[in-house]
Amino acid sequence: MDNIKSYVGQHKDRFINELIELLKSPSVSADSAYSQDVINTADAVLASLKAAGCDHVELCETPGYPIVYGEKTIDPALPTVLVYGHYDVQPADPIDLWTSPPFEPVIKKTELHPDGAIFARGACDDKGQMYMHVKALEYMVQNNNLPCNVKFMIEGEEEVGSPSLAWFVERNQEKLKNDVILISDTGMISNTQPSITTGLRGLSYVEVEVTGPNRDLHSGLYGGAVANPINILAKMIAQLHDENNHITIPGFYDKVEELSSEERDEMAKAPFSLDAYKKALDIEDVYGEATYTTNERNSIRPTLDVNGIWGGYTGEGAKTVIASKAYAKISMRLVPAQDWNEITELFTKHFTAIAPKGVKVKVTPHHGGQAYVTPIDSIGYQAAAKAYEESFGVKPIPVRSGGSIPIVALFEKELKSKTIMMGFGLDSDAIHSPNEHFGIFNYLRGIETIPLFYKYFTELSK
Amino acid sequence: MDNIKSYVGQHKDRFINELIELLKSPSVSADSAYSQDVINTADAVLASLKAAGCDHVELCETPGYPIVYGEKTIDPALPTVLVYGHYDVQPADPIDLWTSPPFEPVIKKTELHPDGAIFARGACDDKGQMYMHVKALEYMVQNNNLPCNVKFMIEGEEEVGSPSLAWFVERNQEKLKNDVILISDTGMISNTQPSITTGLRGLSYVEVEVTGPNRDLHSGLYGGAVANPINILAKMIAQLHDENNHITIPGFYDKVEELSSEERDEMAKAPFSLDAYKKALDIEDVYGEATYTTNERNSIRPTLDVNGIWGGYTGEGAKTVIASKAYAKISMRLVPAQDWNEITELFTKHFTAIAPKGVKVKVTPHHGGQAYVTPIDSIGYQAAAKAYEESFGVKPIPVRSGGSIPIVALFEKELKSKTIMMGFGLDSDAIHSPNEHFGIFNYLRGIETIPLFYKYFTELSK
Repeated sequence: MDNIKSYVGQHKDRFINELIELLKSPSVSADSAYSQDVINTADAVLASLKAAGCDHVELCETPGYPIVYGEKTIDPALPTVLVYGHYDVQPADPIDLWTSPPFEPVIKKTELHPDGAIFARGACDDKGQMYMHVKALEYMVQNNNLPCNVKFMIEGEEEVGSPSLAWFVERNQEKLKNDVILISDTGMISNTQPSITTGLRGLSYVEVEVTGPNRDLHSGLYGGAVANPINILAKMIAQLHDENNHITIPGFYDKVEELSSEERDEMAKAPFSLDAYKKALDIEDVYGEATYTTNERNSIRPTLDVNGIWGGYTGEGAKTVIASKAYAKISMRLVPAQDWNEITELFTKHFTAIAPKGVKVKVTPHHGGQAYVTPIDSIGYQAAAKAYEESFGVKPIPVRSGGSIPIVALFEKELKSKTIMMGFGLDSDAIHSPNEHFGIFNYLRGIETIPLFYKYFTELSK
Repeated sequence: MDNIKSYVGQHKDRFINELIELLKSPSVSADSAYSQDVINTADAVLASLKAAGCDHVELCETPGYPIVYGEKTIDPALPTVLVYGHYDVQPADPIDLWTSPPFEPVIKKTELHPDGAIFARGACDDKGQMYMHVKALEYMVQNNNLPCNVKFMIEGEEEVGSPSLAWFVERNQEKLKNDVILISDTGMISNTQPSITTGLRGLSYVEVEVTGPNRDLHSGLYGGAVANPINILAKMIAQLHDENNHITIPGFYDKVEELSSEERDEMAKAPFSLDAYKKALDIEDVYGEATYTTNERNSIRPTLDVNGIWGGYTGEGAKTVIASKAYAKISMRLVPAQDWNEITELFTKHFTAIAPKGVKVKVTPHHGGQAYVTPIDSIGYQAAAKAYEESFGVKPIPVRSGGSIPIVALFEKELKSKTIMMGFGLDSDAIHSPNEHFGIFNYLRGIETIPLFYKYFTELSK
């Protein structure tokens, strides 16, 4: 595979333009207004797999958005890599904070991306990282050095919790049979220090509704005499953390495993500057659970965050009203052994219990997923580590990510195979935020690194 | 004035249709999108005053929306009544809770309004109540029994705190010279038990902004490690009340006068059913400051309510984001002797002080006004009481309202005259809420009662 760099060098302009085309389609799965764009994106991904050399591609219908499937089998006796990715993206709002339109990709240079980065919603999460695999396959097919079989499963509902994927996987275990699952939907420490994500947090995402009076009221005539749903919601949210920022939901921590001091010391070795972190976010100080470091708080500890809140008059000017209802979207990041269904139940029970008389509370679970840990002694991890080392000239560091890819745990359960998370994005790429971007360097280096994984995984599987 | 009832009976269809026309104009002063409608409404009111018999009308420019002025002077030696009202209305949202479009008035019968009520934004607050005075003038002019001089001052910014009215009043003290100010912008206990509002609460309305990280963040990668502005805002709002629902802002209660037990006993005599109150609002229980009754909580006690809150992702579905900013609109109702400017400062100081490191807080004062109390031994009150008694056959009860008409205190300061609040609406008329309405009975009875006030006020002034 010594010619991979020259092949990428030759075709990089086309690779970049193909990705830019893909990013123009606003495939926002959370908002039904974009459903046609999501469908169109699926078609485009399907076509790209065919063009890259899959000898069978298929748009698999599900109860939700279709799953794009593709495969190239060179020899049933050889191992099979199943590539998972998603073609849907997060909503782009708040639109006004984007420096260029989210679905009109532009290349801009940044401090961390001197070669330029593509700015667009989905550039990194996950169209850019998913498409690296498509181009890596193109290279291996064009150069007749695909060392094993490959399958692609690209879904369109990852950003809303993959409701249809479980349905699909359960019904297609034979079709999806594989020896290892490969995903690029995470990040790495820096462009000079690659890392492999070995842990993911689970997730429980709920929406709460607090109802007070049966209609909006004049705050002068009723203020102070009835429970104001917004004040009450604020009070209830405040009660979900204690003074040490521990979560107060009874039973929430029961299954949380405390890491040994050795493990925590190991984690602490990853390069990290608290000052740079605060400076990058323009915050005077970090904030979180007492007795844990920032990197522990956002990876090995469960958390509870309000992702959205609304109620009452939010327009221009002033309206002296007491709203009938107030709402919040709340998500909890979970760690291995915490079951998301159980946590959702514990939250619902507790949140309902702390509601004062005078309001009614409704909790609606949105979605969730289990946490996951990849063993670093697996051949999948070893192959990935060798690939990064050869490509970057530096040994990758295993890290526990704070993010969630709920379906990874599902894959292990249903397909009985391990998942390797080879991420090429950076935390600063602003995924889920305005001005999401993906470095040209990262995109191209990813395409160069992936074939090496295939090579080493096939060798180590012998 | 014995022919007032027959005059109203003869012309009531026209009176109703004229009001319906006025209500079709969405004069929402809080939203600049409606500015042309606000202007058009001012023109319509001006024309109605001319038609009713004012011998001088004028659209007075201000830094904001114009003030409609009209006067009819029959003899400078006679007393002058200054009628104040407003032609602007509250925003109509949430629109989807209206059973008919807010600016397409319709007449519907209700339990409390068997003769029907006009449903539209502004029907009661204040177009309907303001227009009663225009029609009362028409009656007195047409029947040559206007007993004194009258001036009208109808503004278009009451719902946003009357920013231009103070400017106008300070510059037109001679023009506005009067012996009593008459306002119908409050309510009465019921259609069989009239009441006169003798007290109004003051108001301090602020908007707060809490900023955490400089951009929206992925809640997986950053969750638990940085201050989440929504969680922090909720926590800060929760801290504004203690476990007895006392407001915790230092100095907030310093100038609050405790009513004597005699005064509280007097108040308690007003007919009130807690069960009916809870049933009407569909709440299991009331909620408020410990040791005070519901009627005390919403009239003689200061309060703090969040009128609106927003931040993060509030769209369809789920977005795992930590917002950069969270916002709330917060208003405090004040009682006599509390100075709204001072309270705004105390709030700002306290709210900034309780912000944890890791967030920045901005407090923007919207507007405010002082509380007010009308002495019931004034001839203005006596005249109003006699008018109600003659019109309804029942002595009116003096009540302290929880609402605010910030400019009443201003009038006393600048124009040195007392304000009489003759309200004809009901609390159940849903002002500031979806489905605002005004009873046909109340509208017509108001038109019948107002000329009696002129008559008795003139007699008592001799």
